[in-house]
Amino acid sequence: MSKGITSRKEDYSQWYNELVVKADLAEHSAVRGCMVIKPYGYAIWEKMQAVLDKKFKDTGHSNAYFPLFIPKSFFSKEASHVEGFATECAVVTHYRLKNDGNGNIIVDEEAKLEEELIVRPTSETIIWNTYKGWIESYRDLPILVNQWANVVRWEMRTRLFLRTAEFLWQEGHTAHATAEEAIEETERMLDVYADFAENWMAVPVVKGKKTENERFAGALDTYCIEALMQDGKALQAGTSHFLGQNFAKAFDVKFTNKEGKLDYVWATSWGVSTRLMGALIMAHSDDAGLVLPPALAPIQVVAVPIYKTPEELQAITEFVDNLNKELKGLDISFKFDDRDTHRPGFKFAEWELKGVPIRLTIGARDMANGTVEIARRDIQSKETVQKEGLALRIQSLLTEIQQSIFQKALDYRLKHTTKVNTYEEFKDVLENKGGFVSAHWDGTVETEKLIKEETKATIRCIPLDSVEEEGICIRTGKPSKQRVLFAKAY
Amino acid sequence: MSKGITSRKEDYSQWYNELVVKADLAEHSAVRGCMVIKPYGYAIWEKMQAVLDKKFKDTGHSNAYFPLFIPKSFFSKEASHVEGFATECAVVTHYRLKNDGNGNIIVDEEAKLEEELIVRPTSETIIWNTYKGWIESYRDLPILVNQWANVVRWEMRTRLFLRTAEFLWQEGHTAHATAEEAIEETERMLDVYADFAENWMAVPVVKGKKTENERFAGALDTYCIEALMQDGKALQAGTSHFLGQNFAKAFDVKFTNKEGKLDYVWATSWGVSTRLMGALIMAHSDDAGLVLPPALAPIQVVAVPIYKTPEELQAITEFVDNLNKELKGLDISFKFDDRDTHRPGFKFAEWELKGVPIRLTIGARDMANGTVEIARRDIQSKETVQKEGLALRIQSLLTEIQQSIFQKALDYRLKHTTKVNTYEEFKDVLENKGGFVSAHWDGTVETEKLIKEETKATIRCIPLDSVEEEGICIRTGKPSKQRVLFAKAY
Repeated sequence: MSKGITSRKEDYSQWYNELVVKADLAEHSAVRGCMVIKPYGYAIWEKMQAVLDKKFKDTGHSNAYFPLFIPKSFFSKEASHVEGFATECAVVTHYRLKNDGNGNIIVDEEAKLEEELIVRPTSETIIWNTYKGWIESYRDLPILVNQWANVVRWEMRTRLFLRTAEFLWQEGHTAHATAEEAIEETERMLDVYADFAENWMAVPVVKGKKTENERFAGALDTYCIEALMQDGKALQAGTSHFLGQNFAKAFDVKFTNKEGKLDYVWATSWGVSTRLMGALIMAHSDDAGLVLPPALAPIQVVAVPIYKTPEELQAITEFVDNLNKELKGLDISFKFDDRDTHRPGFKFAEWELKGVPIRLTIGARDMANGTVEIARRDIQSKETVQKEGLALRIQSLLTEIQQSIFQKALDYRLKHTTKVNTYEEFKDVLENKGGFVSAHWDGTVETEKLIKEETKATIRCIPLDSVEEEGICIRTGKPSKQRVLFAKAY
Repeated sequence: MSKGITSRKEDYSQWYNELVVKADLAEHSAVRGCMVIKPYGYAIWEKMQAVLDKKFKDTGHSNAYFPLFIPKSFFSKEASHVEGFATECAVVTHYRLKNDGNGNIIVDEEAKLEEELIVRPTSETIIWNTYKGWIESYRDLPILVNQWANVVRWEMRTRLFLRTAEFLWQEGHTAHATAEEAIEETERMLDVYADFAENWMAVPVVKGKKTENERFAGALDTYCIEALMQDGKALQAGTSHFLGQNFAKAFDVKFTNKEGKLDYVWATSWGVSTRLMGALIMAHSDDAGLVLPPALAPIQVVAVPIYKTPEELQAITEFVDNLNKELKGLDISFKFDDRDTHRPGFKFAEWELKGVPIRLTIGARDMANGTVEIARRDIQSKETVQKEGLALRIQSLLTEIQQSIFQKALDYRLKHTTKVNTYEEFKDVLENKGGFVSAHWDGTVETEKLIKEETKATIRCIPLDSVEEEGICIRTGKPSKQRVLFAKAY
């Protein structure tokens, strides 16, 4: 244990909370449920944003920006949408403060809004109200727009990154002429998310559909990617919704199709949030701190010098300057930690805590021998290597680490995905092993709710690759045609 | 006049309003005072963000994120700050809606917040409350943090980009061990803004200090860059504040200095916003539409084919594909407008309206002759050139256009900066010529307010390069030691 972090075994939840704060990722703010994302945490989020943004643009999307506030009446227009979000809204009622004459600042009751404004929990309503003005004919379609924004959902129990009252996210909102095209878009964006999770975050995910009960408020179909954390709990890492014509009908958005007939527009929406930070941390990190996949690490390589004399430091610095140039050419981010205020041991622990994938230790003796020590954060291994070809060696090692982290997470998930056929087995696995449980279910909301009440497990998804298979529901014994994935979840 | 935009001469204000909407930059939303930034407008903002963000990082800053909400009590802690912002705040008072039983969605009075939350109009208070936990000793300083965020100021009269209830901006907030270092930072960031305005936006700016009366609420000194629009009105394009120890004192942020003594921390803050979009549009555009400087144009070159047969289009397309590859290699963004739904004349007008710096017209006859027609948006010139070396020619032309647009704006400003020595002259220039008026002022807030009441002109700044010069105040006849810049302003 470095810097006194609780171990995962001791208390997984506590380990996570401490790690987020001690690794300088985020902290609680003075505002209930809202977090401060610190520079090191934000640098990871920026890398995520850059990769995702490029993928959105490569698939034809543009960014835009819609208002933070949503008139209350907009919510009422889509019945299930308001039901889903009304109970957790920040409501703006006034637009001015004043001095009460005794030096206290109070709300000016004369500045009451005629209609209350809701701080957006998601933007379907304000966006579809806007799209009404943008769409007349099939020639105006598709509209492929994404927004990077903050949203607010007044959660009562909050945890840094995983569940906060305010969080950052992107929300794509697209409009299409046909249902087929909208479904295709929904699936395309799910693939984008899965690709990002697996190849950048190194987090293996199951692609699937949500059950009716777990769908987004207002969607006909919700697709999701589900990841498994090291404590055996699942985490929903991204969702992509086929909204049908629900929002077009609520906001009266029609278009003239190629045949000259009026029809309602088809919609999708899809989003990932700073919650991904939570997934990234929980999927890979260990008792010594963060383990970051190289593809998203703000600093990929750190070098710590070991020296006694200024001359020794000088020699090391010259070597490091050259290395840095080579690494820059390979697009590898590098930091030389030459602070003279801290000892090497302190630095090792700090960079370990912060999850830097590769650490170089460069001593005066190494310089003389033409060698350098390379330490891998993920498996905590050390190796002494020749200085020649170091940059290229680092480059291939980063690729190896990225794959290795993914493989480790995948192995864990495979080991923790269990097929069961009885409710006894089901409960036993949930209690003693954790992870995904693949089981038959009769397809009803009632049974789903019953199982949740009895075991706290929810249906994470109906996997897209699931095959038809005759079986009986673990809870009711009724017939079932396919297995679904259950788990306890964040 | 293309697409029926009002001309600048007819009604400058109307011209601007129409241009913003017709060029697909932004539009009013259903929420009073809040705008929708459309994809084309947002693409320009993204380019601005990318350039600025790199400059901030190159000067040692990191990004972070702080809460959208600020507890009401935080505002009261810095006296002049609350005075500056209290009268234009969006106030969150409740955190839940409910169904009233008759199908109406109403605010749930039981979900009233103990303390109201203000939607941030700026983040000094919440950030300095956070910095308190980050700073103990001089070793923790400086803190160089920037935030990209949305803010809300409940303006009563709004105009797209120029003054909106919600806008997007960046706000830098830095903490330092000494006043000197903080002042240096304040000036450094002013230089960053001036460099960006002049070399990317092609908008010449005057760097200066605000008078006491025009300072940011809570600052000891406010530096600004002031630009001149084509109607002779000034626009404040960016500000950088030296906050002294005001916020450190309000939030009790002390540090142990090198001598082991406790002292309050020194602060700066600095910001630019989507208001820059307004400046960009108003500084360069004409009656035919936008004129964008190449450095910020989302599309730098557009090509329109003129053809009759599929074979002719095929030949043009092949040529364009090759050109596109060459331009990509030069990092020039290119669009081939081969829509078969619109005529060339329509396309010309559209790209003119949208301010694309260079338009190529490529006809079948041109192909045969080995030529292409190049049109410059800024001076609306056309020229027929050889196909050979076209990409490099475009590259140098883009540089030329960038310089030319800047020079034109600079010439305008020089022509519209007038030295006056009497109040008669002063009023005459304001009324009949517009622009900056350089005049002596006695240095008092009273006179400044009097002049504003009588002429609507405000002191835009005390230019940093102004020289000491004996004179008498144009309004009071009292002695003055330097000229200041007056103007009517946005």
